[in-house]
Amino acid sequence: MDKTSSFSSHEGKPIRCKAAICRKAGEALVIEEIHVYPPQAYEVRIKIICTTLCHTDLAFSKYNSGPVVRFPRILGHEAVGVVESIGEHVDGFKQGDVVLPVFHPHCEECRDCKSSKGNWCTRFAEDIVSNTRRYGMASRFKDSMGEDIHHFFFVSSFSEYTVVDIAHLVKISPEIPVDRAVLLSCGVSTGIGAAWKTADIEEGSTVAVFGLGAVGLAVGEGARLRGAAQIIGIDINPDKFALGKEFGFTDLVNPTLCGDKKISEVIKKIAGGGVDYSFECVGITSVLSEAFISTRTGTGKTVALGINPAAPTELHSFDLFRGKHVCGSLFGGLKPKLDIPVLVDRYLKKVYYLFAYSFVNAYKLYFISNLHELNLDSFITHELKFEDINKILLLFAFDLLEKGKSLPCILWMDKK
Amino acid sequence: MDKTSSFSSHEGKPIRCKAAICRKAGEALVIEEIHVYPPQAYEVRIKIICTTLCHTDLAFSKYNSGPVVRFPRILGHEAVGVVESIGEHVDGFKQGDVVLPVFHPHCEECRDCKSSKGNWCTRFAEDIVSNTRRYGMASRFKDSMGEDIHHFFFVSSFSEYTVVDIAHLVKISPEIPVDRAVLLSCGVSTGIGAAWKTADIEEGSTVAVFGLGAVGLAVGEGARLRGAAQIIGIDINPDKFALGKEFGFTDLVNPTLCGDKKISEVIKKIAGGGVDYSFECVGITSVLSEAFISTRTGTGKTVALGINPAAPTELHSFDLFRGKHVCGSLFGGLKPKLDIPVLVDRYLKKVYYLFAYSFVNAYKLYFISNLHELNLDSFITHELKFEDINKILLLFAFDLLEKGKSLPCILWMDKK
Repeated sequence: MDKTSSFSSHEGKPIRCKAAICRKAGEALVIEEIHVYPPQAYEVRIKIICTTLCHTDLAFSKYNSGPVVRFPRILGHEAVGVVESIGEHVDGFKQGDVVLPVFHPHCEECRDCKSSKGNWCTRFAEDIVSNTRRYGMASRFKDSMGEDIHHFFFVSSFSEYTVVDIAHLVKISPEIPVDRAVLLSCGVSTGIGAAWKTADIEEGSTVAVFGLGAVGLAVGEGARLRGAAQIIGIDINPDKFALGKEFGFTDLVNPTLCGDKKISEVIKKIAGGGVDYSFECVGITSVLSEAFISTRTGTGKTVALGINPAAPTELHSFDLFRGKHVCGSLFGGLKPKLDIPVLVDRYLKKVYYLFAYSFVNAYKLYFISNLHELNLDSFITHELKFEDINKILLLFAFDLLEKGKSLPCILWMDKK
Repeated sequence: MDKTSSFSSHEGKPIRCKAAICRKAGEALVIEEIHVYPPQAYEVRIKIICTTLCHTDLAFSKYNSGPVVRFPRILGHEAVGVVESIGEHVDGFKQGDVVLPVFHPHCEECRDCKSSKGNWCTRFAEDIVSNTRRYGMASRFKDSMGEDIHHFFFVSSFSEYTVVDIAHLVKISPEIPVDRAVLLSCGVSTGIGAAWKTADIEEGSTVAVFGLGAVGLAVGEGARLRGAAQIIGIDINPDKFALGKEFGFTDLVNPTLCGDKKISEVIKKIAGGGVDYSFECVGITSVLSEAFISTRTGTGKTVALGINPAAPTELHSFDLFRGKHVCGSLFGGLKPKLDIPVLVDRYLKKVYYLFAYSFVNAYKLYFISNLHELNLDSFITHELKFEDINKILLLFAFDLLEKGKSLPCILWMDKK
């Protein structure tokens, strides 16, 4: 990174900085010097403060064919940054604003963005192939040889600077620590949104969450804040259960330890006939079928958060007919510009919890704790320096993710 | 039927009357003298005034295996009757009340009946095998040899008298003509309920209805009354299109005339990207898949009203993931005792429609018509005398239904 740069000195000019480039499927990312070109109309150039690694980055570093696969590319789609400069027709953002880029667009102008239902931006969301939202395959990145580098899901946050369309940018309060805010850029928002917007969980409901990665834990957190009576977590990795308890899961089940019983039978027994809401956060169609069967006849709602686009979703027709619901949830049904600031506010709001510890069944000690209402703190388990991305650390983090050992790993751009 | 009977003279005793019995799969029904025993606790004995034939009766006259198949049996599940006598613990019904039996239970006491969501009666709905709701395989019908005759879906209306549990009985206003009220006993209520309760169609919505039988036409009627902007009817039988227009369908499409185009492509084109709501009223899984694809990305909702329990429902996973909804609708999501009286009221309510006819593009004639708000009148196309059921008329009506030529056929019990 050009250490002499200030927010204004490069306005209208390319910025020379470092980025981690994915040059070939399955290979380690390579840190290179690149040029990040100025934002055009409706675009903002951002200095990334921190970013995260998640499953989607890992998957796209490995895919070697498909309509959205291309190299060289700058991955990364969860981040927090500060506005360095803005293009023409950019309202609502100015230099120095703290912003969250989001892969899912919110143009605020199309019929669906204006509607109170769903979060599908008809104007933009169908195109997931372009580099830049309004300029097709035009890229704002060039490598040292002057060759274009491709963007990734309109964010490309594995770079010290990136250019993002305003339809993909949310201004957030500078009060929230950036390493908490960054979690709201994708997975955690998706889980909470699925609980609040897609399912609209009511107080006293019963909930089953299949898969306790960041999205699944966030569903549990959303259910907890809505006052769900029972939140059942299902994962084949029992290492995740301790964290599950931190997020308020009331029951934790390992399907590999259920003997001959199907997991849906176990859930139905725990929840007295079936849960009101089930969430599939794994992306395996057979798990979705089990999640569907686990819900209450007549009213049960299943929310699909994982996706295997290659396999059709198969549901038991008679169960469907008897009144069950199934729906998908992309980015948790959240409209980014409207809903992410609400999540930030829920984090900033402090609440008092009373903890009681019992000794010898007789004496009790009470502790009152002043905590953030929305628990983002427990999601953070690993942090790395961005410059270490060039060494084995990135692969190490990917490996952790792949084996289901860690939650999203935060990469700090400036830390030494 | 014993012509000397009054409503009170047989109280507590068996009634001798005529019923159409299905003695063997696929054979014509046979009118026989039977004995209808007195209602037990929570039961009501009803004098049937009129009943209808529909697809379900036809199907169950032909099935020869399965858990809910048995002979001899009295079919018929849509009817209007008058209370002849009541058993113990029957509140809310008295001799002479006009009542509508409904195959789907509503106990009003279980958690789900008390909830505002769905219409699945947890207490009773799971059991579709028993003859009587609270007495298992006990039957209230015996033939002249003293052998039990089985009930059908807790109604058995192809009999001059029947015994129905109060969980399956709705008291209705005597102001509504019985040949209109009878339509609310199953298919028409299912369609309107699916539009109003399951889908909850808003004003200005776009709607596609696959299959224009009674249920499909009723969905259209429900959509019309909710102010849908576009109601597209799809059927391979164009004879149904004239009736479709009577129910306010704005577009009518015959999939066999769409050339190489899939019906979902045609619907998407008509509705500008996809409909807000689609309804599958045929019971073919491939049609359900097309109905699903026809809906708007991000928010589209597909309601499954037909059912093929043998085949799983297959959905395009990526479309689901992007925010589409699918749900089933049994009896249109209606809670019978609460919602059928509302439908009766909507029929009884008169509204004024203004019709304008244009002559030579210059002169216009206006007609004001005073019509029932809920159009039930257009559903009636055929009527038969019950005593003709023993001849070929029943088979004729079944044939009409099977070839998709007619709507439900009304059978009058007393007409000569």
